[in-house]
Formats: sequence, structure tokens, C-alpha cells
Amino acid sequence: MVIEIGEGAACAGVFTRNAFCAAPVILAKRHFKQQPPRYLLINTGNANAGTGDQGLNDALACCQALATSAGVKPEQVLPFSTGVIGEPLPVATIVNALPAVCRALSAEGWADAAHGIMTTDTVAKGLSRRIEIAGQTVTVTGIAKGAGMIRPDMATMLAFVATDANVSSPLLQQCLDAAVNASFNCITVDGDTSTNDACILMASGHSGLPEITTAEDPGFIALSQAITEVCVGLAQAIIRDGEGASKFIAVEVQGGADEEECRRAAYTIAHSPLVKTAFFASDPNWGRILAAVGRAGIPNLQVERVNIFLEDVCIVAAGGRAPAYQEEQGRAVMAREEITVRVELGRGESFARVWTCDLSYDYVRINAEYRT
Amino acid sequence: MVIEIGEGAACAGVFTRNAFCAAPVILAKRHFKQQPPRYLLINTGNANAGTGDQGLNDALACCQALATSAGVKPEQVLPFSTGVIGEPLPVATIVNALPAVCRALSAEGWADAAHGIMTTDTVAKGLSRRIEIAGQTVTVTGIAKGAGMIRPDMATMLAFVATDANVSSPLLQQCLDAAVNASFNCITVDGDTSTNDACILMASGHSGLPEITTAEDPGFIALSQAITEVCVGLAQAIIRDGEGASKFIAVEVQGGADEEECRRAAYTIAHSPLVKTAFFASDPNWGRILAAVGRAGIPNLQVERVNIFLEDVCIVAAGGRAPAYQEEQGRAVMAREEITVRVELGRGESFARVWTCDLSYDYVRINAEYRT
Repeated sequence: MVIEIGEGAACAGVFTRNAFCAAPVILAKRHFKQQPPRYLLINTGNANAGTGDQGLNDALACCQALATSAGVKPEQVLPFSTGVIGEPLPVATIVNALPAVCRALSAEGWADAAHGIMTTDTVAKGLSRRIEIAGQTVTVTGIAKGAGMIRPDMATMLAFVATDANVSSPLLQQCLDAAVNASFNCITVDGDTSTNDACILMASGHSGLPEITTAEDPGFIALSQAITEVCVGLAQAIIRDGEGASKFIAVEVQGGADEEECRRAAYTIAHSPLVKTAFFASDPNWGRILAAVGRAGIPNLQVERVNIFLEDVCIVAAGGRAPAYQEEQGRAVMAREEITVRVELGRGESFARVWTCDLSYDYVRINAEYRT
Repeated sequence: MVIEIGEGAACAGVFTRNAFCAAPVILAKRHFKQQPPRYLLINTGNANAGTGDQGLNDALACCQALATSAGVKPEQVLPFSTGVIGEPLPVATIVNALPAVCRALSAEGWADAAHGIMTTDTVAKGLSRRIEIAGQTVTVTGIAKGAGMIRPDMATMLAFVATDANVSSPLLQQCLDAAVNASFNCITVDGDTSTNDACILMASGHSGLPEITTAEDPGFIALSQAITEVCVGLAQAIIRDGEGASKFIAVEVQGGADEEECRRAAYTIAHSPLVKTAFFASDPNWGRILAAVGRAGIPNLQVERVNIFLEDVCIVAAGGRAPAYQEEQGRAVMAREEITVRVELGRGESFARVWTCDLSYDYVRINAEYRT
């Protein structure tokens, strides 16, 4: 899949923090610093990670091939790969496909592009928002892929978001950082941060509006909000399509001393295989949630201040089973396909929210069969 | 299940660090400080955790009933529970069973006791070692239960170890701390630390040897080693019986700057659902191991110094796919039932080892069906 970026467009990006970041990630970050990007080149099925110098050469060869046919510099092409780790990139297959891919470039190509980057995804993920800035319509459109190895944490799975707003690059990066923190950095399927995560935000300026140059501009605030909305929608779509997922679960932790401990508690719940299998079974086995909070490493947690809710049903009050709680209430909530778990720590004013899914037979099947 | 401890015996214990520690854990720790324990009272099926004051009263009522019939003080009874969290303890059932249980007390009762504490365990876990100290035979015998919610981390699942050696209590605690660190604190099934973990070590002194009072005593060193061996054997038995486990996996991380980062890398691999499903599938998808090392949060990890081995097969050399590696070599190792993964970080001299198992359909089945 190829994305063409109009000349003069601004661009922002975030990349995985996995120490073993893939060859295309290394190269994309390098190119990004050298030149304003004009093309994004994305392949699936092969991550080109753990491939050493050969991997870097392979990724560069693909960038050069696209650059030559498009008449730009190789540094103006950013490569992205996703798939199996540790296999050599099939450079010839990619290079041979480029002419047909480039002929198919079209402003109407978003849906095809969203399909083109799917791996274990079962549905294509795309989202668009229109807002008004100074009486003019501005569009924000994004696509993403991802279903497993999802716990972005300061990066994302592959996601590409574009707008026709006119924004300076530093402000665009600010928009993207805020949007990613509120979206892709709040999801987990299996706690495994990928070696290939990346999210790119592009702004063509084609809306015809004057350039936004300060964060105080009302247009910037509206745009930033629309970009965050698109990213949150894409992040949630990844969770809904989580490998084997049958339930969409929001874990909200409030009353923490700081956001960090709220996030830690939320992720401990969201990563617990016991909590996730209980959701799969629609079993209100809330003791597993309580045990996860207890092992989250919150210093000096006073359990007698902790309350836990399944939607509006209080299951744990003051650290123990809520006196009024009836099992049927828990069952009714657990039967739903979308469930919010809310934890009150009673230590302060901070809050964090994480989105996750359940752990099913199909997660094991997909990941036992993947590759083989 | 009841364990009677001879008068004058020394006792040591470690307990879960889960902030939501269960009522019996709170009470056992309290009693332990007040009196030398004479009886351990263990029930399965109900964890008596997340049960508040009622839970404490219930656990105390059970201790009182046993104390009365045995003619000791309630503080001389330590309660232990394991099972479902958040349900009221069936005190009457336990109290009514006590007379028959106490009549069955026997020095030959270890095997029955090991069976008596099973929950989702499929096999009873017991181990005994005989050593010579000063020409005299000393025995160390232990039992344990556990298959899921296993990631003890500074505590253990329920384990009870006894010896007829004559050791002072502080030295016995020192023995136990060392043994637990080298055994129960090195295992994980699913990363979930239980609310009820406990390990008790008892020394009756019945061997007739003079009391060991210093850590320099050659007898102490031999005894400490035997106790560690028994604990390692029990810990490994828990992993072999891990819920749904079909493989026993040792993860060894060496060359770390300190033990803590080695443990972090080992646990990140051992907890990764993607790594665990690859083991289940016998698929040498080593990229998942590499990705786990990369996200383990090791500061300034130089990936070009990292090597990874499956048994003796080098799969990653200098941070990338090992040039000589052949897929068939990886397949041959992955087909085994016992596999060692070895990671070299190339940063220092430290080492850590963790034992774990794979993630199978049966793990999901057992934990989706448990309770319901």
C-alpha cells in the first residue's frame, strides 16, 4: 500500500518504543529527519524486524524503487512493515508490485488502503470527521491496522491520519502526541508492544485556510479535538477487532494519587489472563479484579478505601464484597458485549482509562496457528 | 486439612504481598507473631478473600474450634484458605469436619495432605529429601498446591515444608527466605499473584541433633540446600501442573547489569501471551521472544549485543536472526516438552531464571469454567 503526500504538506509521527524496533521503523525515523516525506510505503505479512543490516538494506531498496518511479529522493519515502518477525523482506515482490500500486493512487482510495494493511484484522478500520474552521469545512480521515501484539504504550500499531487543514509541523506533532496519548496509548489486547508500531499524521493544507501557527488558534483546538476523536475511534476499532475478542471492556481507575498509578492498576486488570477469561465466560468473578488491583504495586494501598463497580453495580465496597451486591446483578452486566469496570482507589484525584478485550479460545487458536 | 506441629518446634513463614491479602493471611500473620504455632488449618474451594471483617471473624471461628478440641490457644492455630474470592467461608462445614480430620492425624499423612489441598491441580505435589548432618539422617518433606493465579513474587502458593532438624526460628526464617527466592519466586503461570499465597517451614527438632544456631554451621548449609531443593521441586511441580500446560519452559537471562533487569526480561518473556501460544503450537516464532525482550523496559538496551538461544540453538545473534540458524533446528527444540530459552543481554554479569508454561486452549477453558 502506498500513500502519496502532497508537496508542502506537514507531517508528524510517533513510533514504537520497543528496543528491538524494526528496520523500517529505524529507516522511517531517519528519513523523517532528513526530508519532508512525500510517500509512505506499507507492506503486511513481513515485519522486517530482527533482520539486522540486511533488513535495513531491504527497506532502503524498496524506498529507492518507489522514489525512482515517483521522481523523488529515497529519503522522501517512509517505509512501514507489519507481520512475521525475523524473516527476510521479499524485496522483489514489493518492488514488482509498485507500478500497479502507484497507478491505483487515488484521493478516493482510503477504503482500499484500509483493507490493504490488514493482517490478522477481520475488519478494515477507517474513520473520518468533518469540522468547520472559520466557516470552512476541514476533514480528518484516518485508517489503522492491528488486532494482536497490541499494547502500544507511547506509540501505536500502524495508523495513518490525514487532514486538509493547514498546520505547521511542530503544531501537527503536538496534535498527534495528544491524540495518541488519549487513544492508541490506552489500549491493550495482550500486553505485547510490537516492534513495528507507527502512527503518521499528515496535513495537506488543501482546505485553503491560512496556516495555523499557534496552539491558541480556535481552529487548532477544533482540529486537535477532531484528530483525537479519529484516533480514539481507530484505537477502539482495534480492540473491537482484538484477536479472538468477544467483548469490549473499558477499565477506568479514579481517585489515584497520580495518573501513573491509575494507569498501572488499569493495565494490571486489563492484562490479567484470569480477568480476561472471566469476561469471556460472562462470569462476574470479581475477586479476580480485586486480586489484580492488589498486585498492581500501588504503594501503601489502603484496601478499605477501594470500591469496584461493574457498570453501575457496586461489587466491592470498602475493600470487601459490597453488602447489597447480588450475583444476578453481576451476571446481567457480564452478559453485555460492552462493559465498563470502574475502580475507586480513594487516594487522590487522578484518573486513567484503558480499553481492552477478553481472552478466548480464538486468541489461542489465532496465535498458535499464525505463521504455521 | 490439618497439620499438627510438635511442641517446641521452630516455624518460619512467608506470605503474599498482594495488597488485598485474604482474611486467613491477615490472621495467620497476626497469630504467628503472638504464639509459636501448633496447628495449621487449610481449606480449599473458598479463598476467604475480599470478605472484610466477616472474613476475619469466620477465619477466627475456625481457629477457635480447632484450638478448643486440641487444647491449645486460638493464636496457636494458623488458618490458610484457597479457592474462589469473595464468597463467605462455610464455617459450619469446616468446623463440623474437624473431629474426623483430627482423628486422622498421622506422621504418615503427607500424601493424603497433598491431595487434600488440591484445587484446579491435577496432581498432588510432594517432595522429600534426606541428608546427613553430623552422621545423623535429617529429613525435609514438603507439599504444595497451585496451578493457576501463579506469580508468587515474594511469596508463594500454599506450600508446607517440614524437617526434623533442630534449628532456631531466625535461622529457619533465613532458610525459608532463601529457598522461596530460589523457587516459588521464580515461577509464573499467568502473572496473577494470589491473595492467599503462603509458605510455612516447620522444624520439629526430632532428629535428636543439637540445635543449629549459626549460619556458619556446616549442618545449616546442608539443611538450607535441602530445603531449597524441596522448594524448587515443588515450584517446578506447580508449573508442570500449570492450568492447561503442555510444556515446561525455563527462561534464563544472563549478562544483565543487575539481577532485577534480568528478572524483568525473564518475566516479560514468561508472561507474553504471544510467546506462550507459540510454545503451545511448537512454533519457533522467535520474533515474539525478541519483541518481548525489547519491551521489557531495560534502559539503553543495545540490541546489537543481544543473543537468544533455544536450548543450544542460537536463534538471535547480535540482535538479528543468527546467520547459521535453520528453521528445522528451532522446530526440533520446540517439539520437546521441556525447553530452555536463554537470553544474553551483554551488559554485565547478572543472571535470573524463571520457570513457566505455555498458554493453551485448556487454560482458557479451565478459567472460563472455574466457578460457573
